[in-house]
Amino acid sequence: MKSGDVSPGVDRRALLSGLILLPAASGTLLSTAAPAAAQPSAPLQSWNDGPAKQAIVDFVRAATDQASATFVPPEERIATFDQDGTLWVEHPMYTQVVYCLERVPAVVEQKPELGTREPFKTVLSGNREAMAKLSLRDLEEILAATLTGMPVEAFEAEAEKWIAAAKHPRWNRLYTELTYQPMQEVLQYLRDNGFKTYIVTGGGQDFVRVYSQQVYGIPPEQVVGTAGDTKYGYDKNGKPFLTKEPKLLLNDNNAGKPEGIHLEIGRRPRAAFGNSTGDRQMLEYTGAGDGARLMMLVLHDDAQREYAYGPAQGLPDTKVGTFTQALYDEAKKDGWTAISMKGNWKRIFAFG
Amino acid sequence: MKSGDVSPGVDRRALLSGLILLPAASGTLLSTAAPAAAQPSAPLQSWNDGPAKQAIVDFVRAATDQASATFVPPEERIATFDQDGTLWVEHPMYTQVVYCLERVPAVVEQKPELGTREPFKTVLSGNREAMAKLSLRDLEEILAATLTGMPVEAFEAEAEKWIAAAKHPRWNRLYTELTYQPMQEVLQYLRDNGFKTYIVTGGGQDFVRVYSQQVYGIPPEQVVGTAGDTKYGYDKNGKPFLTKEPKLLLNDNNAGKPEGIHLEIGRRPRAAFGNSTGDRQMLEYTGAGDGARLMMLVLHDDAQREYAYGPAQGLPDTKVGTFTQALYDEAKKDGWTAISMKGNWKRIFAFG
Repeated sequence: MKSGDVSPGVDRRALLSGLILLPAASGTLLSTAAPAAAQPSAPLQSWNDGPAKQAIVDFVRAATDQASATFVPPEERIATFDQDGTLWVEHPMYTQVVYCLERVPAVVEQKPELGTREPFKTVLSGNREAMAKLSLRDLEEILAATLTGMPVEAFEAEAEKWIAAAKHPRWNRLYTELTYQPMQEVLQYLRDNGFKTYIVTGGGQDFVRVYSQQVYGIPPEQVVGTAGDTKYGYDKNGKPFLTKEPKLLLNDNNAGKPEGIHLEIGRRPRAAFGNSTGDRQMLEYTGAGDGARLMMLVLHDDAQREYAYGPAQGLPDTKVGTFTQALYDEAKKDGWTAISMKGNWKRIFAFG
Repeated sequence: MKSGDVSPGVDRRALLSGLILLPAASGTLLSTAAPAAAQPSAPLQSWNDGPAKQAIVDFVRAATDQASATFVPPEERIATFDQDGTLWVEHPMYTQVVYCLERVPAVVEQKPELGTREPFKTVLSGNREAMAKLSLRDLEEILAATLTGMPVEAFEAEAEKWIAAAKHPRWNRLYTELTYQPMQEVLQYLRDNGFKTYIVTGGGQDFVRVYSQQVYGIPPEQVVGTAGDTKYGYDKNGKPFLTKEPKLLLNDNNAGKPEGIHLEIGRRPRAAFGNSTGDRQMLEYTGAGDGARLMMLVLHDDAQREYAYGPAQGLPDTKVGTFTQALYDEAKKDGWTAISMKGNWKRIFAFG
């Protein structure tokens, strides 16, 4: 993990290319909470029978059978899940990047001097084509301005308000409704079998923690993500508070995932789920331990019900959640199990 | 929190002044596990009736009474405990510093070139008076050499072996037996009432995680401590592993405690326990939230059964676990509750 300036560590085009598909602003009137995932009477009901479902069931049986040599003591039952593209939709743009862009007007209202200069001027213009051409450095400036410089509680209140109302342009539904129902069932099935479920995300740790309990049943302390520094201080009444600082402490992508797992969990996971090259090291690290192990990769191969992308499937490389041929080869070599959204999932979402 | 070189962030004299009291080497033959703390039938049996015990009982009642406005939902029941001087003995020297000094011969065996130069030469000499004069920079070099540069698993195996055998010079008992029985009862009482108990220590996170489950019933993922960076890599067979790097990521002392709590827990604690100026900000931060709160400070005022130190009690300032008059004044002003080892505890340890 590296310290330094805030850097998303991903391709600029990936972050901005979906701009054209977004609505002008997310709806802010219909602030309904996302429905809790219903717990099916039998596990994994949204899964078709086949090798992916079988791999999950076999792993749980191996880990929980006390008579077996592969039995995993309850305290060692740690399962880690990437979020974007693994637990919910990441196209056309990471939800958190949408948040940052939509926060710009409010930030400029508080700091009017920003509104007269780039890149804020372009974002305020609403010109999607101009915004898509912003540089990585521009984007970093937008992330720093919208994610740092405020008390932790102020950030949490803003993010909470936004996520309760923001909608995805394709489905016109709350982002929090766009979690994959089959993966919600995996989370529940593992928890029912004594596993602690963690999110290990390249997204902002503070951002995901705002809604992780409501959306996934995962408490904030079980979210590991990209994290900036904070600074302890006092307000004018002597009351202490933490300020979010524009300094990266953990870039929770690629090698940063096992490093973040060691930092915040301190145990090697028994099961890990991802969907892109950013998850490779987490799956490798999980697989390098002894005993019962499960490593799975979600393939986005369902353009009709969700999206189809990834060179490994001969599909376009959109740079968001890139699934390369090299990753696919490693998965085969190391015995990781692919999850075909098209073939393995009866349905994608809880709705419809 | 600051990045930079490994730095203990405490006074050199504090770390080395106890050298003269230590045995030449910890016993390594009698490797018996520390006994688990017995769970008493009634809570807090080792506590005398009085304001300290009453504060704990009142807090738990306020937090768990569903009919009360002070009720705390189970998921928000987070309690944080400093370790050294709060959960176990920190005199005459922090246990981890003893570990580092005793590791020097093994490190020199692997890297013979170190043995011919300072500060390693002095440590190898066994001359306690010369060792007590080592500079802070010398000490940092010793910490870096003994705590970093090896795979995470290699460090854990060494620390585990050491802690299973190392003994305190005064009681000739395992360090792991020198936990305060009344505090073990507080941990259990809070857990019995739905609290997640965390250690938040200025000591090394990786070190404390090795024994936290066995000694306190606290799993590794509930230990926040001073943490260095790790680096992901592969061995010659392509197997991935993490190496402990000599770069400080979180200095979990003073302001670093609330910062570390935000990083690794993401919730403000409801209860916090400390014993020194290094715990001040954690207690302030805990107390700054609404509703039921408990902030407590252990006073080391029992020279006969443990140790007596701290200017606030008119006792010597030993620089290890310093309890200053300023801290005592803040405690009174903010309604924190002092715990007198001499007056409030029927017994100090589970043995004898």
